[in-house]
Amino acid sequence: MTNLILCGGAGTRLWPISRSSVPKQYFQLFGKDSLFQRTVRRNKKLCHDFFIASSLDTAFIAEQQLEVEGVTTCRFLLEPTGRNTAPALTLAALASDPDTIFLVTPSDHVINDEEALARAVQRAEELARQDYLVTFGIHPEYPETGFGYIEASGEEVLSFREKPDRETAEGYLRAGNYFWNSGMFCYRGRVLLEEMEKHAPKVLEHSRLALQGLSGNKITPSMENMERIPSISIDYAVMEKSHLIRVVPVSMGWSDLGSFDGIWEQGKQDPLGNVFLGSRAPETFSSSNNLVISAERDIALVDVDNLLVVDTADALLLCSRGNSQKVREVVQSYRQKNPALLENHVTVPRPWGQFTVLLDTASFKVKRIDVIPGRRLSLQKHRHREEHWTVVEGKAKVTIGQNVIELSRGGRAFIPRGEVHRLENIGPDLLSIVEVQIGDYFGEDDIIRIEDDYSRR
Amino acid sequence: MTNLILCGGAGTRLWPISRSSVPKQYFQLFGKDSLFQRTVRRNKKLCHDFFIASSLDTAFIAEQQLEVEGVTTCRFLLEPTGRNTAPALTLAALASDPDTIFLVTPSDHVINDEEALARAVQRAEELARQDYLVTFGIHPEYPETGFGYIEASGEEVLSFREKPDRETAEGYLRAGNYFWNSGMFCYRGRVLLEEMEKHAPKVLEHSRLALQGLSGNKITPSMENMERIPSISIDYAVMEKSHLIRVVPVSMGWSDLGSFDGIWEQGKQDPLGNVFLGSRAPETFSSSNNLVISAERDIALVDVDNLLVVDTADALLLCSRGNSQKVREVVQSYRQKNPALLENHVTVPRPWGQFTVLLDTASFKVKRIDVIPGRRLSLQKHRHREEHWTVVEGKAKVTIGQNVIELSRGGRAFIPRGEVHRLENIGPDLLSIVEVQIGDYFGEDDIIRIEDDYSRR
Repeated sequence: MTNLILCGGAGTRLWPISRSSVPKQYFQLFGKDSLFQRTVRRNKKLCHDFFIASSLDTAFIAEQQLEVEGVTTCRFLLEPTGRNTAPALTLAALASDPDTIFLVTPSDHVINDEEALARAVQRAEELARQDYLVTFGIHPEYPETGFGYIEASGEEVLSFREKPDRETAEGYLRAGNYFWNSGMFCYRGRVLLEEMEKHAPKVLEHSRLALQGLSGNKITPSMENMERIPSISIDYAVMEKSHLIRVVPVSMGWSDLGSFDGIWEQGKQDPLGNVFLGSRAPETFSSSNNLVISAERDIALVDVDNLLVVDTADALLLCSRGNSQKVREVVQSYRQKNPALLENHVTVPRPWGQFTVLLDTASFKVKRIDVIPGRRLSLQKHRHREEHWTVVEGKAKVTIGQNVIELSRGGRAFIPRGEVHRLENIGPDLLSIVEVQIGDYFGEDDIIRIEDDYSRR
Repeated sequence: MTNLILCGGAGTRLWPISRSSVPKQYFQLFGKDSLFQRTVRRNKKLCHDFFIASSLDTAFIAEQQLEVEGVTTCRFLLEPTGRNTAPALTLAALASDPDTIFLVTPSDHVINDEEALARAVQRAEELARQDYLVTFGIHPEYPETGFGYIEASGEEVLSFREKPDRETAEGYLRAGNYFWNSGMFCYRGRVLLEEMEKHAPKVLEHSRLALQGLSGNKITPSMENMERIPSISIDYAVMEKSHLIRVVPVSMGWSDLGSFDGIWEQGKQDPLGNVFLGSRAPETFSSSNNLVISAERDIALVDVDNLLVVDTADALLLCSRGNSQKVREVVQSYRQKNPALLENHVTVPRPWGQFTVLLDTASFKVKRIDVIPGRRLSLQKHRHREEHWTVVEGKAKVTIGQNVIELSRGGRAFIPRGEVHRLENIGPDLLSIVEVQIGDYFGEDDIIRIEDDYSRR
């Protein structure tokens, strides 16, 4: 069975921890791992292959995190633009053996009861081998109005229901045969494609065209071809129309962590109802029912109740509990006023490692740069800045014009403005340097790449 | 008239903006100036001389801020330990011409109506020249229970009253002849000393002893001598006992900014009752009656009411409005768990300028160092670290062992572990360097000073 993990979500409702360069599924919030890493670790026990559908820009983060989880071979669908779930599932099926059984999972859900998951997946696989398209229905725990529901009779699907109002949701809960639509599926590739042919032939046709001439472990359709595929969910395209649908009901401590309210609900509450996530617990005084997410800062709460506190290096969100859907309004406002705040964290991942902006002024900028063993930055030059490097950890090979030198801890290099240069980690451990940039402009767009291991322009 | 400014307060109720190395009166919160700077600017119009009573450790900040305000000559009482107000006033009087008229003011109060202040001070000076000890009584605006009150009949003082309970305070407000004790005074030095002789002779005697052999513009009694002077307020020592007291009632938009609740009360409220202080206004959505103090971070508030938000580079305080007196409990807790958080900000002032910690790890540390024109750090060495400097602004003279070099923007220097070195600003503008420390210990106590312009050990 192949686990197709859908990583296309932007997660804007979780700003400021979710940014476009590191969407929520990749953010290492829960201790040291991300929701994506947890998904991989869980599904490794159920599937022998992985197929990752990700936006082209952020797929390298998936690659790095897969490596951490010990997954070394994996296929990728790299989407230059998101087209919802039907195209992703269709493209993955077209690019695979027709008899492949797929387990489709989102990358950003929490599942606490892995044994229940395993039992449900086992049953779904049986049904998929009988050529059914299988959905997973979560036993609802409360009358949630933000999810779609599946009306079932045993494993038969009677109907798919849109997000209900409160009263309707309460009725579903009482009826007992309505389940949350989890966004997880299980099917044989050939069966999916046959049903796409019947119910969404344009998606199939344009998906075929988008794949022409592409092969290998990384499939990257062109922007033009992707944009021709109708953007539609698999629910609308097939599930709500096909007669081959089955549902496997399951209770597995599931949550989609779609909002900070949801994170508080699902979090481990202390006796006063406070939930803390991150590396440093806050000091609390007479404070209850708060969510505090913090990576680095010391936070003190005094007589504060029902507050969502989300603290990052450059942005702080304070929101009353029950109102976290309004984070969308915050994001819309920043889109006008300060879009950079939606794009990057202070630490920015790169295919070769990451950098952290330590100081950014009009006339100089200071960065910490961390390079993964064996990786190197592009061969590059800058028009507007010179750079001063000091190696603080690890072993570097540094190219400056025609010269190549090796530097270890305490070693230094000077890159004149306009000079071609490159930084490479040739040691067994992480390479860290402190870079002081001096010049008149320090944007990431002042990088002229002459050569790059990651095909970036 | 000489303005004696009392700068001894620690301001722990305003943590995290107030830290022991930069107490609240010196913190540049209100735009670009501090409460101390505002006090100096106000009183320059009323007095021709300044006498600053400050703790020895933080007096250099007063000096730097006086320079910014254009005050170049000033006398200092540098206290190795705080002994409350009576010793400070006595020492200043003993160290001055006996006929000097003193205007005593705290350094951390807000006064919005400067004309009212000027009229009150003019009347107080007249009374002081008639050899009265004058206090200033603030017309109470609400039944504050945190201040002492003065009961008056015209300019006659009938009694001093301790901090009242709520009911008593309401009675004072209704009566109309009770005033807040402002902590401001006006008197002739000789008269104060005569009254000290009568009512607090030990304070006078030990103050005389503490001054023996000291002269010049900076008077620094020894720790031993200071500790012998009884620690007592001028109110208890003299004001409540003397028959020469007069009170000048005044309404001048006064506030002592003793707590974040007080800052919200006094702040400029927007139509929804929000008060913002700092360089960056927050984004607010359906939020009202909040105080937000922030230097750098982007802050978004969603459906948040009656919250005090105080954000600094390394610590964040969230406190419900009306409870800011509990900040003391936070401070007590951190005193046990993380005392460094009470001492320094990320940016630490020094007599020669300031430094900012950009990154602090177990194996390396990165600082920005800013040196005022003409100043230099101590001639020093380190046991546990080497240092890599890059000049990013200004012009430096750098001593390394026997070598002296001059560096400008882009210049670099390497200080081996154990090597004697010094950094000096020889340019007309601020000198800024980025320092990368590599070693195994990075505490400020790993500085062995061989020579220092500021007599630090």
